[in-house]
Amino acid sequence: MHTFRVWAPLPKIVEVQVGTQKQPMLAQPDGWWTAEVAAANVGDLYGFILDGEGPFPDPRSASQPHGVHLLSQITDPNSYAWTDDNWQPPPLTSAIIYELHVGTFTPAGTFVSAIAKLDHLVALGVTHVELMPVAEFSGKHGWGYDGVDLYAPHHVYGTPDELKQLVDACHERGLGAILDVVYNHLGPSGNYLAKYAPYFSKRYAPTWGEALNYDGADCENVRRFFCDNALMWLRDFHFDGLRLDAVHAIYDFSAEHFLELLKLEVQQLSFHLGRPLFLIPESDLNDPRLLWPRERGGFALDAQWSDDFHHALHTVLTGENKGYYSDFGKLEDLAKALQHAFVYDGKISVHRRRRHGRPASGLGGNHFLAYLQNHDQIGNRAHGERSSHLMDIGKLKIGAALVLTSPFVPMLFQGEEWGATTPFLYFTDYQEPELANSVHAGRCREFAAFGWNPATVPNPQLPATFERSKLNWAELPDAPHYQLLDWHQRLIRLRQSEPALKDGKLEGVKTHFDEPARWLVLERGDLTVAVNLANQPQSIPLRLGAHRILLASEPEVRDLNECVLLPAEAVAILKRE
Amino acid sequence: MHTFRVWAPLPKIVEVQVGTQKQPMLAQPDGWWTAEVAAANVGDLYGFILDGEGPFPDPRSASQPHGVHLLSQITDPNSYAWTDDNWQPPPLTSAIIYELHVGTFTPAGTFVSAIAKLDHLVALGVTHVELMPVAEFSGKHGWGYDGVDLYAPHHVYGTPDELKQLVDACHERGLGAILDVVYNHLGPSGNYLAKYAPYFSKRYAPTWGEALNYDGADCENVRRFFCDNALMWLRDFHFDGLRLDAVHAIYDFSAEHFLELLKLEVQQLSFHLGRPLFLIPESDLNDPRLLWPRERGGFALDAQWSDDFHHALHTVLTGENKGYYSDFGKLEDLAKALQHAFVYDGKISVHRRRRHGRPASGLGGNHFLAYLQNHDQIGNRAHGERSSHLMDIGKLKIGAALVLTSPFVPMLFQGEEWGATTPFLYFTDYQEPELANSVHAGRCREFAAFGWNPATVPNPQLPATFERSKLNWAELPDAPHYQLLDWHQRLIRLRQSEPALKDGKLEGVKTHFDEPARWLVLERGDLTVAVNLANQPQSIPLRLGAHRILLASEPEVRDLNECVLLPAEAVAILKRE
Repeated sequence: MHTFRVWAPLPKIVEVQVGTQKQPMLAQPDGWWTAEVAAANVGDLYGFILDGEGPFPDPRSASQPHGVHLLSQITDPNSYAWTDDNWQPPPLTSAIIYELHVGTFTPAGTFVSAIAKLDHLVALGVTHVELMPVAEFSGKHGWGYDGVDLYAPHHVYGTPDELKQLVDACHERGLGAILDVVYNHLGPSGNYLAKYAPYFSKRYAPTWGEALNYDGADCENVRRFFCDNALMWLRDFHFDGLRLDAVHAIYDFSAEHFLELLKLEVQQLSFHLGRPLFLIPESDLNDPRLLWPRERGGFALDAQWSDDFHHALHTVLTGENKGYYSDFGKLEDLAKALQHAFVYDGKISVHRRRRHGRPASGLGGNHFLAYLQNHDQIGNRAHGERSSHLMDIGKLKIGAALVLTSPFVPMLFQGEEWGATTPFLYFTDYQEPELANSVHAGRCREFAAFGWNPATVPNPQLPATFERSKLNWAELPDAPHYQLLDWHQRLIRLRQSEPALKDGKLEGVKTHFDEPARWLVLERGDLTVAVNLANQPQSIPLRLGAHRILLASEPEVRDLNECVLLPAEAVAILKRE
Repeated sequence: MHTFRVWAPLPKIVEVQVGTQKQPMLAQPDGWWTAEVAAANVGDLYGFILDGEGPFPDPRSASQPHGVHLLSQITDPNSYAWTDDNWQPPPLTSAIIYELHVGTFTPAGTFVSAIAKLDHLVALGVTHVELMPVAEFSGKHGWGYDGVDLYAPHHVYGTPDELKQLVDACHERGLGAILDVVYNHLGPSGNYLAKYAPYFSKRYAPTWGEALNYDGADCENVRRFFCDNALMWLRDFHFDGLRLDAVHAIYDFSAEHFLELLKLEVQQLSFHLGRPLFLIPESDLNDPRLLWPRERGGFALDAQWSDDFHHALHTVLTGENKGYYSDFGKLEDLAKALQHAFVYDGKISVHRRRRHGRPASGLGGNHFLAYLQNHDQIGNRAHGERSSHLMDIGKLKIGAALVLTSPFVPMLFQGEEWGATTPFLYFTDYQEPELANSVHAGRCREFAAFGWNPATVPNPQLPATFERSKLNWAELPDAPHYQLLDWHQRLIRLRQSEPALKDGKLEGVKTHFDEPARWLVLERGDLTVAVNLANQPQSIPLRLGAHRILLASEPEVRDLNECVLLPAEAVAILKRE
């Protein structure tokens, strides 16, 4: 026996089909329908028939074993035997996050195969694993931002219980687990929600997909759909936090914004579960309101991705200046990012052709994530180049040092720790020819504007594009990779052992730099990070008196008491005596 | 000699035409163009020619003597000799606002003719005059919400100097002056802004007009256009405050919302001028963020229109329950509105089919305007019926008493004080046949949905529709009108003399009521307002001990110490001894 429930105010008649048997559902208040089906059991396939059309997958399907277009599967939410009793995740203040994509993290690309690599992450020293979206999307492989069955783990990655097994295995090793969720749009293939209910809004015209109906008529159950989804991952899958994709595309003019509601309900759940839960938005707004406490009119989200820091660091290291990188490039920007998080805090952005952002006043470093690269910054390049494809090891070590000594919560992208040679390309597996063509054509058009020859832009639909993006773990023991891994490990150990690096206060962060000479010094409490970006050795003045070198990227670093002599493209971390 | 300046990043060539002479303009940074024209003088007509097309009116035209489609006129901003030195307006805390429409307030319908009626307003006791929008719109008459030359007073109402004369005359009599401005859309006729610059946004799809570009590329000069407009009315026309039309249709996801920017600049101007300036939004969001102080993440606007109070009061008095009135109708709603301003503070609205609003926590009564009627609530009815067309004098007196003893800032609509018999219809004067037809057809369609016979719905385009809406001052001395005027005057005197009515605190407001018996009691400090809405006399219990009657709508009111005996449909205001 199984009870089916679905919100479907649009159709006049709703039936449930289990296997090949149909049964009418009973209309309930507010557009809900229910049916008790005696012959339905865990493992059975089912769908809903709307005014005679269908069957369509359940919008809240927990499992889509045959993909987005076919039937949903009844699961037992209690079948997994958890072993993480009394689990408490490492606090966000001492977190170091490792972003990974299940499909390319291991050769097999599954939840279960990822488990075997967790010990590598423990040895590296990171504290949290962040999974790119795992909700069921169209095709076998993809980044996951085009999910359409938001309650179902992607069947190619494994079953719901196998995802639980992965989270459990993280917890067993002391690693927190974060899931990336997409609440700003649905994917273009397999999206049947509009047949059920007014999930979408016509009031807004976003650049991709249709805007979700967070503030129009009948939005109550749309808000519940996404809120319940978040609660499910945290409660039933034991995730410790969620990364919220592109919240600037959540259009909501309600007096209580969806993100406020979400945070309140997640706080309640956290209280109920007795463990912290956090929400980390990606936002293109540079708006501290997302992070400010409720007393200050904020949404009280826990931390946000800091693209300004990334862009400032990336441009200083690579000299790139196209597109949005044109707004960055000076040591001054990097220094401002290190001290204030937002470089664009109300100042004019030439690239955006408008003022952007406002000061992150009152916020701490722990409210921001810092990274040298992430899936977007790599994969949205024509050739999916990682930092290690764009700079030599000296610069890579500088980048890692600045991320891992920053006042922010550091984040690494899979393989970054050893400078993986594999790219992270944009890959898709749409079955509809139109969609398949348009995704490639769109990408060629986009990069042609940047001067790329379209013929050389990898076709996201080719299986090889996906395969090439898989990490090659065999290269890890090679000397240069192992050297970089060691550098990351040492930086992480340093971060975890030096209180000054974890205090999360922006007030205490100081910088000085010489733009033409290309050096920068970051001071955090009793620690000083000295960076030489120039092509020749130079002596960099220190302001904190007597000190000793804790860590240096090159053996030739010399401490001259009032200053430090750094070889070309090198970094040293010093401590006041 | 005159220097012309215009922001026009879209055309490649811009010329200025003065009279019949053309002169090329010089491109300046950021899409601005300038030209010095030796032969141009105050009073001359001019326009801008964009890539050979035009001439078009100046977006910042100060005067359109021949309407929206023809040339702009050079004015002298300093030609008016002000007499209001050291002017200080009455504070908002003791304000009673009088909303008027220049075109129908007097038979002549001009700024100058309005001056003759100001002494009536002084005698009535109101403190502020609020003008419905006066910015140049298409045609001779209209409500003004379809303005397109936002810097130019409507030429049919008079010259810029004549508007200054009206404001000056208000100030001479101690009356503050408020102007209604529309910053959420432009009218459909005579709107040439899009030819100059990206004033409009494609990101949003509002129900009327095009959304303005407050947050996209090049929005800086769009924000300046509206902000400078506000500053102009306050600085150059000596207005004391602005009413901001429908701010829920100002779509702005910037980290610094346009309304925050506007408030900051108005505050600066206020400091500079040495007199208070206020901003009063109309908002359909029930979002206290508009009013909260900046420390609480708010925009710190001064007060907002309170439609919830209106709807609660209107439905209780009329029994109407169609459309948005279906969300109201109980004494409970009215009591909640009196105590908390927002009836919809997060609770489900059946009409909107969603939750609406959030509590107005921390705000005072002075943050809200209360009214029994306004231009919208009258004019958006099929037949422009005022409250005096919908209820008898007993209910009218109750309505006036509750507005004028409320914790809010009371507002009257022109003629309300004497129960004017003239309707306030929706009237337009579009010259384009298509627009003229569609405005009538749209209105018929709208009201047909409410069961009106379209044939009886007045055509907004007919001159008679406008003429019928003009106040008939000749009826004022008639007994029933004079009686109602006297009631308003006595209530206003009472409000101004009793500190409890002006304290603006919501915490101190108490209500009790009996829904089936149809009575309600409002307590404010040592004052009690007892209302009998029933068709027969009844005794209403009082909780404040010994008291005396200050004012009663009927002579038969009897104070029975523990209660007050009120005849049918009557109100009494009592004071604790």
